[in-house]
Amino acid sequence: MYRSHTCGELREEHIGREVTLAGWAGKVRDKGFVVWIDLRDRYGITQLVFDQERTPAALLDQARETGREYVLQVKGNVIERASKNPKLPTGGIEVLVEEMTVLNPAETPPFTIEDQTDGGDELRMKYRYLDIRRNPVKNKLMFRHTVTMEVRKYLSDQGFIEVETPYLIKSTPEGARDFVVPSRMNAGEFYALPQSPQTFKQLLMVGGLDKYFQIVKCFRDEDLRADRQPEFTQIDCEMAFVEQEDILRAFEGLTRHLLKAVNGVDTGEFPRMTYDEAIRRYGSDKPDIRFGMEFGELNEVARHRDFNVFNQAELVVGIAVPGAASYTRKEIDALVDWVKRPQVGAKGMVYVKCNDDGSFKSSVDKFYSQEDLARWAEATGATPGDLICVLSGDAGTTRSQLSMLRMELAGRLGLRNPKEFAPLWVTDFPLLEFDEESGRYHAMHHPFTAPKPGQLELLDSDPGAVRANAYDLVLNGNEIGGGSIRIHDKKTQAVMFRHLGFTEAEARAQFGFLMDAFQYGAPPHGGIAFGLDRLVAILGGQESIRDYIAFPKNNSGRDVMIDAPAPLDAEQLRELHLGLLES
Amino acid sequence: MYRSHTCGELREEHIGREVTLAGWAGKVRDKGFVVWIDLRDRYGITQLVFDQERTPAALLDQARETGREYVLQVKGNVIERASKNPKLPTGGIEVLVEEMTVLNPAETPPFTIEDQTDGGDELRMKYRYLDIRRNPVKNKLMFRHTVTMEVRKYLSDQGFIEVETPYLIKSTPEGARDFVVPSRMNAGEFYALPQSPQTFKQLLMVGGLDKYFQIVKCFRDEDLRADRQPEFTQIDCEMAFVEQEDILRAFEGLTRHLLKAVNGVDTGEFPRMTYDEAIRRYGSDKPDIRFGMEFGELNEVARHRDFNVFNQAELVVGIAVPGAASYTRKEIDALVDWVKRPQVGAKGMVYVKCNDDGSFKSSVDKFYSQEDLARWAEATGATPGDLICVLSGDAGTTRSQLSMLRMELAGRLGLRNPKEFAPLWVTDFPLLEFDEESGRYHAMHHPFTAPKPGQLELLDSDPGAVRANAYDLVLNGNEIGGGSIRIHDKKTQAVMFRHLGFTEAEARAQFGFLMDAFQYGAPPHGGIAFGLDRLVAILGGQESIRDYIAFPKNNSGRDVMIDAPAPLDAEQLRELHLGLLES
Repeated sequence: MYRSHTCGELREEHIGREVTLAGWAGKVRDKGFVVWIDLRDRYGITQLVFDQERTPAALLDQARETGREYVLQVKGNVIERASKNPKLPTGGIEVLVEEMTVLNPAETPPFTIEDQTDGGDELRMKYRYLDIRRNPVKNKLMFRHTVTMEVRKYLSDQGFIEVETPYLIKSTPEGARDFVVPSRMNAGEFYALPQSPQTFKQLLMVGGLDKYFQIVKCFRDEDLRADRQPEFTQIDCEMAFVEQEDILRAFEGLTRHLLKAVNGVDTGEFPRMTYDEAIRRYGSDKPDIRFGMEFGELNEVARHRDFNVFNQAELVVGIAVPGAASYTRKEIDALVDWVKRPQVGAKGMVYVKCNDDGSFKSSVDKFYSQEDLARWAEATGATPGDLICVLSGDAGTTRSQLSMLRMELAGRLGLRNPKEFAPLWVTDFPLLEFDEESGRYHAMHHPFTAPKPGQLELLDSDPGAVRANAYDLVLNGNEIGGGSIRIHDKKTQAVMFRHLGFTEAEARAQFGFLMDAFQYGAPPHGGIAFGLDRLVAILGGQESIRDYIAFPKNNSGRDVMIDAPAPLDAEQLRELHLGLLES
Repeated sequence: MYRSHTCGELREEHIGREVTLAGWAGKVRDKGFVVWIDLRDRYGITQLVFDQERTPAALLDQARETGREYVLQVKGNVIERASKNPKLPTGGIEVLVEEMTVLNPAETPPFTIEDQTDGGDELRMKYRYLDIRRNPVKNKLMFRHTVTMEVRKYLSDQGFIEVETPYLIKSTPEGARDFVVPSRMNAGEFYALPQSPQTFKQLLMVGGLDKYFQIVKCFRDEDLRADRQPEFTQIDCEMAFVEQEDILRAFEGLTRHLLKAVNGVDTGEFPRMTYDEAIRRYGSDKPDIRFGMEFGELNEVARHRDFNVFNQAELVVGIAVPGAASYTRKEIDALVDWVKRPQVGAKGMVYVKCNDDGSFKSSVDKFYSQEDLARWAEATGATPGDLICVLSGDAGTTRSQLSMLRMELAGRLGLRNPKEFAPLWVTDFPLLEFDEESGRYHAMHHPFTAPKPGQLELLDSDPGAVRANAYDLVLNGNEIGGGSIRIHDKKTQAVMFRHLGFTEAEARAQFGFLMDAFQYGAPPHGGIAFGLDRLVAILGGQESIRDYIAFPKNNSGRDVMIDAPAPLDAEQLRELHLGLLES
């Protein structure tokens, strides 16, 4: 036994006990006549003390020479601390050391192992094993474990069973790029890593397993954006003999359980909103409803004056920014610059200050009367002290730009409180979305998503208007889960494939085994998948997922700690029947 | 709601209730005036009844025309069954159907969905989603879920945290072949899929996480043998600040918990045996100790006669086969043929029948007296009625051959009772094993396994004699887990690398990031990994792992259901900077 107690365990009730501890040396404070060492392990920090009066000289010297991050084992007595530290659970005591063994010395770490470290992102990634010693990272990994255990316990208690689906599967050209795995035994052939277990979970429903879940790694070979990982974790779920309502209820149950168990929050029933409503009210299919600032459409009240920008726009839409009427000219100019950044892309912004005296001051006073502006204020819900920000242009783009502005301003105003949780179901997503590049419609969710009852006929006349039995669960402006009711009959599936531009042969080549399976009695079914990395981060009150992943990759998909990917040797390539192309 | 109850739920207390059920049509029995359909879902079977008196004619016709595996939804009344079926939980009732909807028709399945199916292995694999509807397969998948939940709950309660380690890692030339994943973004470079999270779990210990576990997929591109899968699941565990004893205790706790929770068996404390003892007594490092038949070494008592085969052998060793003295000449000849099969490889077998009257009859009566043979009986523990089977040759080969014979005969004699559980710790494995092919020593476990204290010096003089702090957990003759205490200091690691034939540069290229990590304060640590597929199969009382895997691959590493692996299209290959070599 290396230790009798952990470094987080000792309290005043242990005073007088002889204990053995093991851990890492943190701060070493040498006051000459007395030396203190913070001994740290996963569970906490215990202060070790060595002093001239009570500690043998050799041991005192040894203590002095102890370097940061040395691995120590000490034996000693728990004594009362002269000046207690109420911030530390072990702050009432210290251990007067009698014996100390250096289990392993340590080089000086490249950054300090403290809650506030001096290490930059790159360095912390390269020495991730040291970063994990820091409380902020360690606690996030432990939090992730807590969340996944709660997910598993809850779903298991509800009769779901976790089934492992294969990782070495088959590449499908649809959707994002697959990572592939060359087969040595089957020359010239490749497995693919799953982007999701979608088809397998549907096969499990055909197989009668009824209530399935899996916490599973998925892989997507996409050009990485910040906070996207080539491998990510999903809570993947599917149910048979259900309608959309059953699924929403089941997974609202899971999410409420998590919020309660992990955050101690009871949100009550989740509000619901159709996709169309979300776009209209917030310009986003994942609106953050922790705060207001809903869109006010101004077409009626802002056209028919001499301001041609608005007259020619498909949509004029604004938001009321609470308390921002006091923005200076400079601040407003900066805001206009912000919406003009390429990432947002607006051509300009009109603003109206709602003065405390009920009057208005706008950037378009030349064109609009006070009465006109009063109607804008009404449409956006602005009250005295607010700033109305107005964008215009084609409807889709303008809404999306105003949504970005809304989120940005809410952030600046502190309205996005990470300790507040505002879940929202967004339902009735479009079945198809038009892809400019390929000039055809793609399945918005995936090719097996069922259209809403009675809308199949619309596919010919107005494909973009068809709504699906598809839903997202949104939490604080992030999509944390999404799913759909699946098509389970052959005829509907054939119609869908035709509209997605698949010939029968193409459909068969890609989804043949699923189509076969559906001939042998597929039950009505549907499901949902949650992005675990994101879910855990949001529950943890953080924006970034990276520290909730033990060993993340950087934005080029590299693991800088182990230096992967890396070249293979020639023999390995030959065995895999592969050659490298010159790039 | 598609159903008010499941097909496994209704009992006599529900008689008189109107219910809605959904499921698959099993047997349809048409007696003219009455039609019965077995309606099946994950939870059970409920008998549906339609009869001339009470069922409208159209519905009765519909019932008659229902095909096997049609997906049905029915509404009806729970009534008492005339002839109850006590074998079925729902056998006291049936549902008199009032309305029936065919949710989906079904083609005739390629094999019958019954506990005893007429489908062969190939067919069942191709239509795995239908095979999963069968109770024997479905129950095994549900059993697997139960086991994994118990593993997670137990380890989590013991303070272990589950950490997900990456799947896209770096290839290492040591050991079995890696599956690799070409990187599109990093031309000419490859990730590898992990054979185990070994280095990452050690890094987590360096990171201070102390008690780690993970249920995780691992990948090994080996030529497949029966019952080996290219992807398999491990319960991977590691602890810091521990000695071997702590680890054995922790995971004996886990295994006892599983046996108790899942099988209702309390095995008591697990016996332990060193590797050397296991080899001497059973000829195997994973002895099945559910039965005796221990090895009796006969060198002392079988040499120094005129039988040159034994005189020239390094080892003469036998087992007493209980009750087999009655084997006929033909049966014994068949046994001799069995040991001569190439898979076993013995040159021959000497036998001694221990007659009931205390006399002996052997195949070597010419060379040995009754007194000699009595000493053989004593050495093997044979009693009247037993058959002593003796093999000879070089020690290692002979022991391994006799171990195969022991297992085969125990199987024939019904001594390998799948409902009996005999766990065993095998400890003190050799640190190194000599590889004939490469002419050098390899790490038996892996290059980070610690030698037993004080044995490091032996590495130069007698490397094969060095024993390691390495252990296996054996259950019923199967290795279900194995692990070791790791080297945590630089010096020992350097000595190890030298003896494994690595230059410093080679060691650095392969394990550089781990060696770096060890410089910053590596704690003493060690761990274990369990093969989950095998563990679940043994707890389930089965020999084969295949039906405990939802979608297994065949012996060529193919998934015959989805037909993977498969060729990629030219564009995909080009994007990956790859060309195919002619084979």
